[in-house]
Amino acid sequence: MNENLLTNRIRKEVASLGDARSRRESGCFVAEGSKCVRDTWGHFECVHLFATLRWYDENRSRLAGFEPIVVSHGEIGRMSQLKTPGEVIAVYRIPERQFEAERFSSGLAIALDGVQDPGNLGTIMRVADWFGVENILCSPDTVDCFNPKVVQATMGAIARVNVVYADLCEAFGQLPGVPLFGTFLDGNDIYKERLPESGIIVMGNEGKGISPGVSGIINNRLLIPSYPAGRPTSESLNVAMATGIVLSEFRRRSL
Amino acid sequence: MNENLLTNRIRKEVASLGDARSRRESGCFVAEGSKCVRDTWGHFECVHLFATLRWYDENRSRLAGFEPIVVSHGEIGRMSQLKTPGEVIAVYRIPERQFEAERFSSGLAIALDGVQDPGNLGTIMRVADWFGVENILCSPDTVDCFNPKVVQATMGAIARVNVVYADLCEAFGQLPGVPLFGTFLDGNDIYKERLPESGIIVMGNEGKGISPGVSGIINNRLLIPSYPAGRPTSESLNVAMATGIVLSEFRRRSL
Repeated sequence: MNENLLTNRIRKEVASLGDARSRRESGCFVAEGSKCVRDTWGHFECVHLFATLRWYDENRSRLAGFEPIVVSHGEIGRMSQLKTPGEVIAVYRIPERQFEAERFSSGLAIALDGVQDPGNLGTIMRVADWFGVENILCSPDTVDCFNPKVVQATMGAIARVNVVYADLCEAFGQLPGVPLFGTFLDGNDIYKERLPESGIIVMGNEGKGISPGVSGIINNRLLIPSYPAGRPTSESLNVAMATGIVLSEFRRRSL
Repeated sequence: MNENLLTNRIRKEVASLGDARSRRESGCFVAEGSKCVRDTWGHFECVHLFATLRWYDENRSRLAGFEPIVVSHGEIGRMSQLKTPGEVIAVYRIPERQFEAERFSSGLAIALDGVQDPGNLGTIMRVADWFGVENILCSPDTVDCFNPKVVQATMGAIARVNVVYADLCEAFGQLPGVPLFGTFLDGNDIYKERLPESGIIVMGNEGKGISPGVSGIINNRLLIPSYPAGRPTSESLNVAMATGIVLSEFRRRSL
């Protein structure tokens, strides 16, 4: 238990990992709280682990010899991104991941075109995990999946879902024959359309939807119909909600 | 344009409406931002309207003679609950609403048992609106639907969805014969169950699910199956997501 290692420098660095720039420069991200650290432990290379003595005592057997830096709850609070800090913060190395066409050429995958809200991305990763979708391709302007708010919102799914960033049109160019689905207000009723077991579900930005360039190459335009038809209603569904409903409908067909 | 009316007292009162206690004492809630105020205008009794001169100029025709208190953008910021304040804040009277059995005895409705997160309640109201569910019954420990974060997250649905608070078991006691649905990890595959056009979908607390007392009287236990069956996955879906997927499946059947 090397308490002395907790210099001000490290503490500041950890606290700064809420910023995309600090994550880029350090190559690290944080997972906080007992559940999140347990869910992600062993899935990423751990650089530092800060824990209270109590947490360490209770979780020692999970750590396979890894020694945390034992700190007070107050010290956790000064490094934390959370309103209600927990008893543990893991600093992990961000894995190097690139778009690989093979991962997207069979099975069901998701592509996100400019999703901005960290909670939405985290919720999309969580529901993707639930429905067995392991690969998510994001446009470069989509929020960083290692943003601490995203990590927390995934509820552990960050350990199982592979998120990569690339230009969507270029990536789709490497996937000839893979059907591309998107939701549009003038799309075809998803409940009545034929849905294959493979393909990419493209979801757009919270305000602007799917960008014109991407929209033009989507060959299957879907609509989640509101009920009853024609009644005044909300203009749209939240993007994470729409993703979950579309995934549910795809998976229902393949059962 | 009665700029002088904007005393410190009113400003403080408006800023305090983020607190449940202030809302209870004043009987008022706030809607902020141009879209939210436009969506809710005419649906609630407006007590005060604070707007920049620019907003007033652009929206005068919508207000049917109602005179806003014209303020600077900085003054809006000092009253606002938002990180990025808009150009308008409406202070509305909280409508008096009580549980009425008739509203829940036919058609599809939702009951929430201890949902805590304002974003979740707002998202549930938004997806309920999309799928034409007009009535939501909440247990007394569910977050207040006039919490500003809820109001914002509904994206206007607060104007169309009727939310009431009452003890769930007592309320269900007044609804004999109305089928009660809930999602449980040991429930029956929702895609394969018979789903009627009427009933109440009960959703539980984010961490604890449906409370034991309520759980015992639910006669239709449903499961949104993860995919593929048996694969390790997230332990659960977010409560708003699960609500949306269940609603989608109910509505699909009735099309």
